[in-house]
Amino acid sequence: MPTPTIEWVDGGVRLIDQTLLPNELKQIDCDDVECVWEAIKSLRVRGAPAIGIAGALGTVLGIWNSKETRFAEFVDELHGVTDYLASSRPTAVNLFWALDRMKMTAAKHKHLEIAEIKQVLLDEALKIIDEDRAMCRAIGEHGLSLIKNNDTILTHCNAGGLATADYGTALAVMFKAHESGKNIRVYADETRPLLQGSRLTTWELMQAGIDVTLICDNMAAQVMKEGKIQCVIVGADRIAANGDAANKIGTYGVAVLAEAHEIPFYVAAPTSTLDFSIDTGAQIPIEQRRAEEITEGFGRQTAPEGVKVYSPAFDVTPARLIDAIITDKGIARPPYEINLKALAENREMPNYAQSS
Amino acid sequence: MPTPTIEWVDGGVRLIDQTLLPNELKQIDCDDVECVWEAIKSLRVRGAPAIGIAGALGTVLGIWNSKETRFAEFVDELHGVTDYLASSRPTAVNLFWALDRMKMTAAKHKHLEIAEIKQVLLDEALKIIDEDRAMCRAIGEHGLSLIKNNDTILTHCNAGGLATADYGTALAVMFKAHESGKNIRVYADETRPLLQGSRLTTWELMQAGIDVTLICDNMAAQVMKEGKIQCVIVGADRIAANGDAANKIGTYGVAVLAEAHEIPFYVAAPTSTLDFSIDTGAQIPIEQRRAEEITEGFGRQTAPEGVKVYSPAFDVTPARLIDAIITDKGIARPPYEINLKALAENREMPNYAQSS
Repeated sequence: MPTPTIEWVDGGVRLIDQTLLPNELKQIDCDDVECVWEAIKSLRVRGAPAIGIAGALGTVLGIWNSKETRFAEFVDELHGVTDYLASSRPTAVNLFWALDRMKMTAAKHKHLEIAEIKQVLLDEALKIIDEDRAMCRAIGEHGLSLIKNNDTILTHCNAGGLATADYGTALAVMFKAHESGKNIRVYADETRPLLQGSRLTTWELMQAGIDVTLICDNMAAQVMKEGKIQCVIVGADRIAANGDAANKIGTYGVAVLAEAHEIPFYVAAPTSTLDFSIDTGAQIPIEQRRAEEITEGFGRQTAPEGVKVYSPAFDVTPARLIDAIITDKGIARPPYEINLKALAENREMPNYAQSS
Repeated sequence: MPTPTIEWVDGGVRLIDQTLLPNELKQIDCDDVECVWEAIKSLRVRGAPAIGIAGALGTVLGIWNSKETRFAEFVDELHGVTDYLASSRPTAVNLFWALDRMKMTAAKHKHLEIAEIKQVLLDEALKIIDEDRAMCRAIGEHGLSLIKNNDTILTHCNAGGLATADYGTALAVMFKAHESGKNIRVYADETRPLLQGSRLTTWELMQAGIDVTLICDNMAAQVMKEGKIQCVIVGADRIAANGDAANKIGTYGVAVLAEAHEIPFYVAAPTSTLDFSIDTGAQIPIEQRRAEEITEGFGRQTAPEGVKVYSPAFDVTPARLIDAIITDKGIARPPYEINLKALAENREMPNYAQSS
């Protein structure tokens, strides 16, 4: 049983500090919402689904000691907490989805005592974790049909168990293929600046016994050219109604390279990543990160003092470069405008477009 | 006057240890050929033209204390030295070109006393430096016509003064554009694993007062998509007769991305980089580098112990992706099979195809 990425323990949030991996597997305990906010901001917890879970559990922490006794004041405090958590990272829709879900849960139970509402909110957050586990396994099941025996898969960043409650999205497909006896190999982009591929993806795959080879991001084109890659699978932080997908910076470039080498490019994400409130990826805000993550990310300064830096944390891969979107409800193919909606219609989670 | 990249001082080779930049500008003095070999191997001196110079000066060091008095034995010793230096790095043709030139120079002067031949070899090595200076300036002059006022240029790795005697190849075009009063901006790929872009290119451009912005390699696609880039200029380590160009790993990917965004892609290199002995880039050997350069490149381990790594040092950009090759003799456009030969025919340096 691997260490849970994030869990509720003894009235607090326990999470793996992913900034220390792979050198150290250490959990930190958050007893207040500020600690959770900082953990999201600093990428101690990262990956769209895991950020959603952190948001939900952080919300519980934020209102747990509320002194309010009337619903109106309590809900004001609740919204203060969710607004605060929403400010931690702007791109992953799962965060906003989870925070909205917490707000709606409170609204649905306004007839209860505040103490009871607190418990209901905790139950809801734990339900999000359970759903996430089930969603990841469903993604793995659905994605399995896209993987042939002896395939080699390229992935970017970390869309593994560390990005979710425990099984991953893009990596769920690989875990599932491996568990079902298929012989697969993986090339993992190291994923600068924060090296999630190098630090996390290789670590997770090695722990699962999957053959993984680490490359620098700028080697992906060469590996493709050499005929080593049969498909690309990446995660997503937000997917627009038309299928445009925001994911870790560099994903768009990999998609362009995959197209140039006629390699199928797949996105794996839970349906909570779908954002029908935006028509295209152009409406997705892109977080800018600090220059120091690039200039001193390896523990010593590797660029001249004062150099200008441009550091978008995400990019948007246009739908036309995506051959399929693997979700917990099944696989969507173009035209995504139609097929993503059809896929999502039977989902139990609230439709983000309606809730926002 | 900037510190020379590599020079002959007091009977030895003095070179900037580029592995210490940008934090420390330190020169090291090599008194024997082993020191030069190590400096090339460890990338203390790097960049195809500078490696050629190091090879020539290293050859002089290697034979300077030769006790041989007869030409046959002396030339055996000389060839031992050049074979040894050739084993330091396999991709840059300038190294083999320079070593061949030293061997031919000795052969041409076999009627002289050994002591005189040693002096002739030193003169030849110094002539290579002078020619390199002139070639770099000629590349800058020729490339100038491709740069418009207010252009923003993307470059990969370091093809600057640090890669040559003192003015660069790809960067020569930028230096020249800047000196001639054009307003230019540059985006520099950091260039993993050894960060030559981050450590060296930004440093050189900032010293020249050119507006430079550092990005991670995986951000180039996004920067192009945002319309920020008007052209790409990179160096080359070897160019085949058909125009296929070997350069630092990641260059090929940048070329694919440039094509996808309809951005001109230029290679800048002295004609000594042309290798007419090979028809296509498929014949260029690609050096593999140590895993540790990726997994613990900057002082701390950033990947799991024992992870498999694939680390080609170079890739080959096919000629079809190259809009022009900027040389000291002028600009070649496709078809390169014809135009590169035409360009090279009036060069004074020996044709590598004949000398190998």
